Amino acid sequence: MNQFMDRDFLLDTKCAQHLFHDFAEKMPICDYHCHLSPKEIYENEQPSDISQLWLSGDHYKWRAMRSYGIDEKYCTGDATPKEKFLKFGETLGWCIGNPLYHWAHIELQRYFGIDTPLNAKTAEEIYEKANEVIRDGDFRPQTLIAQSNVKFVCTTDDPIDDLRYHKLLAAQDLPFRVLPSFRPDKALNINLDGFADYIEALGESAGIKIKHFDDVITALLKRADYFNEVGCKVSDQAFDYVPYVYADEDEVDKIFKKAMKGEEPQQKDTDKYRTAVMLALGKKYSELGWAMEVHIGAMRNNNTKKFLALGADTGFDSVGDCEIAQPLSAFLNALEANGNLPKTILFNLNDKDNTVLATMLGNFQSSETAGKIQFGPAWWFLDTMDGMTAQMKSLGNLGVLGKFVGMETDSRSFTSYGRHEYFRRIMCRLLGRWVEDGWYANDDEMLRQIVEGICYNNAVEYFKF
Amino acid sequence: MNQFMDRDFLLDTKCAQHLFHDFAEKMPICDYHCHLSPKEIYENEQPSDISQLWLSGDHYKWRAMRSYGIDEKYCTGDATPKEKFLKFGETLGWCIGNPLYHWAHIELQRYFGIDTPLNAKTAEEIYEKANEVIRDGDFRPQTLIAQSNVKFVCTTDDPIDDLRYHKLLAAQDLPFRVLPSFRPDKALNINLDGFADYIEALGESAGIKIKHFDDVITALLKRADYFNEVGCKVSDQAFDYVPYVYADEDEVDKIFKKAMKGEEPQQKDTDKYRTAVMLALGKKYSELGWAMEVHIGAMRNNNTKKFLALGADTGFDSVGDCEIAQPLSAFLNALEANGNLPKTILFNLNDKDNTVLATMLGNFQSSETAGKIQFGPAWWFLDTMDGMTAQMKSLGNLGVLGKFVGMETDSRSFTSYGRHEYFRRIMCRLLGRWVEDGWYANDDEMLRQIVEGICYNNAVEYFKF
Amino acid sequence: MNQFMDRDFLLDTKCAQHLFHDFAEKMPICDYHCHLSPKEIYENEQPSDISQLWLSGDHYKWRAMRSYGIDEKYCTGDATPKEKFLKFGETLGWCIGNPLYHWAHIELQRYFGIDTPLNAKTAEEIYEKANEVIRDGDFRPQTLIAQSNVKFVCTTDDPIDDLRYHKLLAAQDLPFRVLPSFRPDKALNINLDGFADYIEALGESAGIKIKHFDDVITALLKRADYFNEVGCKVSDQAFDYVPYVYADEDEVDKIFKKAMKGEEPQQKDTDKYRTAVMLALGKKYSELGWAMEVHIGAMRNNNTKKFLALGADTGFDSVGDCEIAQPLSAFLNALEANGNLPKTILFNLNDKDNTVLATMLGNFQSSETAGKIQFGPAWWFLDTMDGMTAQMKSLGNLGVLGKFVGMETDSRSFTSYGRHEYFRRIMCRLLGRWVEDGWYANDDEMLRQIVEGICYNNAVEYFKF
Repeated sequence: MNQFMDRDFLLDTKCAQHLFHDFAEKMPICDYHCHLSPKEIYENEQPSDISQLWLSGDHYKWRAMRSYGIDEKYCTGDATPKEKFLKFGETLGWCIGNPLYHWAHIELQRYFGIDTPLNAKTAEEIYEKANEVIRDGDFRPQTLIAQSNVKFVCTTDDPIDDLRYHKLLAAQDLPFRVLPSFRPDKALNINLDGFADYIEALGESAGIKIKHFDDVITALLKRADYFNEVGCKVSDQAFDYVPYVYADEDEVDKIFKKAMKGEEPQQKDTDKYRTAVMLALGKKYSELGWAMEVHIGAMRNNNTKKFLALGADTGFDSVGDCEIAQPLSAFLNALEANGNLPKTILFNLNDKDNTVLATMLGNFQSSETAGKIQFGPAWWFLDTMDGMTAQMKSLGNLGVLGKFVGMETDSRSFTSYGRHEYFRRIMCRLLGRWVEDGWYANDDEMLRQIVEGICYNNAVEYFKF
Repeated sequence: MNQFMDRDFLLDTKCAQHLFHDFAEKMPICDYHCHLSPKEIYENEQPSDISQLWLSGDHYKWRAMRSYGIDEKYCTGDATPKEKFLKFGETLGWCIGNPLYHWAHIELQRYFGIDTPLNAKTAEEIYEKANEVIRDGDFRPQTLIAQSNVKFVCTTDDPIDDLRYHKLLAAQDLPFRVLPSFRPDKALNINLDGFADYIEALGESAGIKIKHFDDVITALLKRADYFNEVGCKVSDQAFDYVPYVYADEDEVDKIFKKAMKGEEPQQKDTDKYRTAVMLALGKKYSELGWAMEVHIGAMRNNNTKKFLALGADTGFDSVGDCEIAQPLSAFLNALEANGNLPKTILFNLNDKDNTVLATMLGNFQSSETAGKIQFGPAWWFLDTMDGMTAQMKSLGNLGVLGKFVGMETDSRSFTSYGRHEYFRRIMCRLLGRWVEDGWYANDDEMLRQIVEGICYNNAVEYFKF
Repeated sequence: MNQFMDRDFLLDTKCAQHLFHDFAEKMPICDYHCHLSPKEIYENEQPSDISQLWLSGDHYKWRAMRSYGIDEKYCTGDATPKEKFLKFGETLGWCIGNPLYHWAHIELQRYFGIDTPLNAKTAEEIYEKANEVIRDGDFRPQTLIAQSNVKFVCTTDDPIDDLRYHKLLAAQDLPFRVLPSFRPDKALNINLDGFADYIEALGESAGIKIKHFDDVITALLKRADYFNEVGCKVSDQAFDYVPYVYADEDEVDKIFKKAMKGEEPQQKDTDKYRTAVMLALGKKYSELGWAMEVHIGAMRNNNTKKFLALGADTGFDSVGDCEIAQPLSAFLNALEANGNLPKTILFNLNDKDNTVLATMLGNFQSSETAGKIQFGPAWWFLDTMDGMTAQMKSLGNLGVLGKFVGMETDSRSFTSYGRHEYFRRIMCRLLGRWVEDGWYANDDEMLRQIVEGICYNNAVEYFKF
């Protein structure tokens, strides 16, 4: 029996151990998509305790606790930090098979030097020990990022954001760069409340008065230029489903004006508007040399009662199952046909779509860069042993895995860099097994290039950081 | 090489062997969903031979035989019991990889003491031997249930059923309880022939004259109260797809009245009617503290010719592929928004939906009970090594596997309790592997609680038997 | 560590090694579906070099190269054969996990006696060595087919094809037979440009003037009779999705006539026309005793720019995700209801559909032949370790794997018979593991029959070659 989560955790062959310890473990981190707050990085405050660090904003943990039957009071409510931690510890013991269980123990081991498995019996002791370590140590964001060997952090930012903290951070002498990403979701969501107000704010941020649809585009492109000046290399869009319904600009302009007057658009009109915006943005991304990330398939805020009480991103999202192949192909093809297709990373939240995405890539590759169209790493609900392994097998079977840009945390927490370690162990496990079984040549130089590429080098080359 | 299906069948680590033999194997069975006949349990008759026991009603076996090219005469036709068994034995030898192969041999070993693999060469010898064992032994339903260490049997019953046999059985001194489940499918199927007649019968059983839609609800709720008095704790509904189209009661009343006059409703109207019934029933289930089982995704009676010749449930059903995420979310949310969401168990028949269901759960959990919304065990066509493993991995990755309510047989046969053993071996294999690989702490007390929980305790606590 | 792709490549148990080396390896090949050119087989020309053999028509290889960032010049462009090979060799080194990597090395080992792994460092040396082997040896199509122990080659042919080369080949004294397959895609694609011209050509080939819809059917049936005379036993149809919308012949005739006048039909009308053609063809196939192959789910020519530059089948296709269960069931049921359902092989390109297909089979089996409705082997993008294993597990779990008709190459290349070896190794690996683990009885005679059946015998019996 292997020791619990020891040095060779997940590395079940000699080759996997070699690939991880001699190559992967030493590589820096390029976290090209996350939800860290640039303000918090800049303000760089020491957390008060492990509950603040772990439980104040992590919807993964809240979901697990609710699933175990823990009252909301101990998740987002007014229980004490210690009460919350004890409830979480009790929950975690029952989470056999859950990545939370591995993430939590990797973080306890790496950041706190605690090897004890966390459960109801050990929660109190671990709570005290961890808080002692925090008290005696430096758990400020910049320290955690630097100690984790992170070189690039790409946050997720609204086009109207002034990027003040990115600029302040750029002016500091830090061992890592914090770059903005352009996430125009609010400008796309013509169907949601608050759209007209957002458009007004967008106009203000761009210094123009938005009256027509083409003003929206002008404003977004101006903001993209501004983001670009501050170092942005990545855009990100969240698509519940993939909208693609082409319409000419006159029609889109009418749809836009109706929405600005407060009329709720039909779904077909929403799609026409979104398509028009995305075609214009895709062209701009291509001109700027940015990568376009597309996160497909979340179904958000399913529990209206909780949404009204707690707001978005509090753990009430799940995985959708729309058909995506046809509209996604049409969207990429429309950009490609005009020479406007940017580097693109496609992320699916439903693993049933792995084969669709992993084959879609191949339709639009070019010599512009290796793996111009990428299959994004297993994400959110798929950020698991099984999800990551399936994504890499799909990409291996159907594309060129050696040029994969690899992992990002997609996280809101400063101790979540353990997820890169988790990913790298799983990747080395998979590759090591293939070599050990004689399925791939035992060529150490090729393997080193592939492993170091997937860990870090491919991303840095791809994004041109 | 391991011996064929021996004591450690499927248990490929020391830990798995320990978890199964020291914990799982000793636990009683809570069979919270099956299709056993309460009449047959009550009448408690000895079967004449193994063909009657195995081949008189088992569509799994008939399908395998037809797939191997056996004529219908030997499945549901007038061949002799011996001829039928010989054809089944021949078929089984070719069923490498099929759970039928394992189920049959578990049953031969446990109930008949026969270790010989069944195939064309051995079928006759096994036929004679098994019949001898039946002749010399006690194969009556109550004996089989008791010997299998079953404590609870939940049958599947129509709301108009008088539950006569459940009451008769309750009056006996048995080591197990036979409880009804409330399955209102016929009241939901407004689109099928015979709906009006059924509604009339429903009214009679509830002692009211059904004229309006709200009378349907009144009748169903009265019947639910009656079921509750007889010990029912579970409702079950079969959804080919998930209908959710809200309409007000006036509109539903009109749809209902048209259908009662014999007009076939449009699908949208069918969905509005079903939605209205399900919202009322969900509320009732919640009030009664029942669990609501939802079996999603069968496509039934695909072969019209055979349906006309042999009727339903004869082996001509298969797996559908509708989109389910959006309507399922809307349905659960509608109940939750009004505080009416009962404990719910979601079952999918298409494994492509595993991720959708395993994440849907987390949107609607509460402190009412651990795992209030459950991901039902792999069912029917997914009741296989791969299907069960995938379901448990999904739940493990995305929920709290330790609070899983575990297996039910969904069976029509009194020797099918071997499916619980099969499930437990697969579960212990999975958990044992995780511990052996150092992925979960080797904490025997936690593991015991988890294994015994999934085998039996979780279900008994969940259903409050 | 195992040696790289040695004698026991993929065979990870003693039993797997035994099943492969003692049974599978010795069986001939029945390649019941491929895209080889009967003209090229007849003309039987020696290739000039390995680039011509490998890179002149293989869209799998081009896709990999483009994904690695290689310019089109080196794929389909005017680079020299050597330049192309070097770029391919460089690409292949990064294709860890891709079946191309295995296919290429199997071919290098078997046809060229080259054991060196191919990558950027070794490409030049391998290029020279392979060309030397070609120069000194016999790499003509007929030799490659005969040396690969192929007994039957079923090509893919348009109904208007005169089958000249099939007849010429039949007149030769060859150790294998080259038979046509009937692929009526162009007669089904009423929605595509060129339909009217095609219908005219179809009429000519059948010796009738096509004016009405029933003339189309008459012409197709006459051509089917002609194909039958030349030895055809198989039809093949490619369905992007499964069309099934029934309409009476008058309506279909109107739809047909509009299309002949150049009006583009609505999708519903396209489906009605296709349904009518397929119902007539299915009946004919049944009468002729042919098997009906249905390849479901490709999404073709996604990149318009490349399609205009390079045409179809050049590597810009991917996997679709339409719902298929309901229309496929309705289509098969419509044929079955009239006693017209032929032997049928269902192929899916999206692995999310495995469970749908593997259960659909069971609805329509009969005693006409073992496995009358077959689940086709993992195909095209699924022709991988994972894809083939998943398909066989699905069939094992849900049908009678022992009667599987097994592999076909679906290939355009004369050295692609290594894919049968690859399939057989994977099949023996899977079965060997089951026996080694005690999941299937270690009965050598049954195993031999199953393995030899899946390799060759089942197909020959099924197609009645």
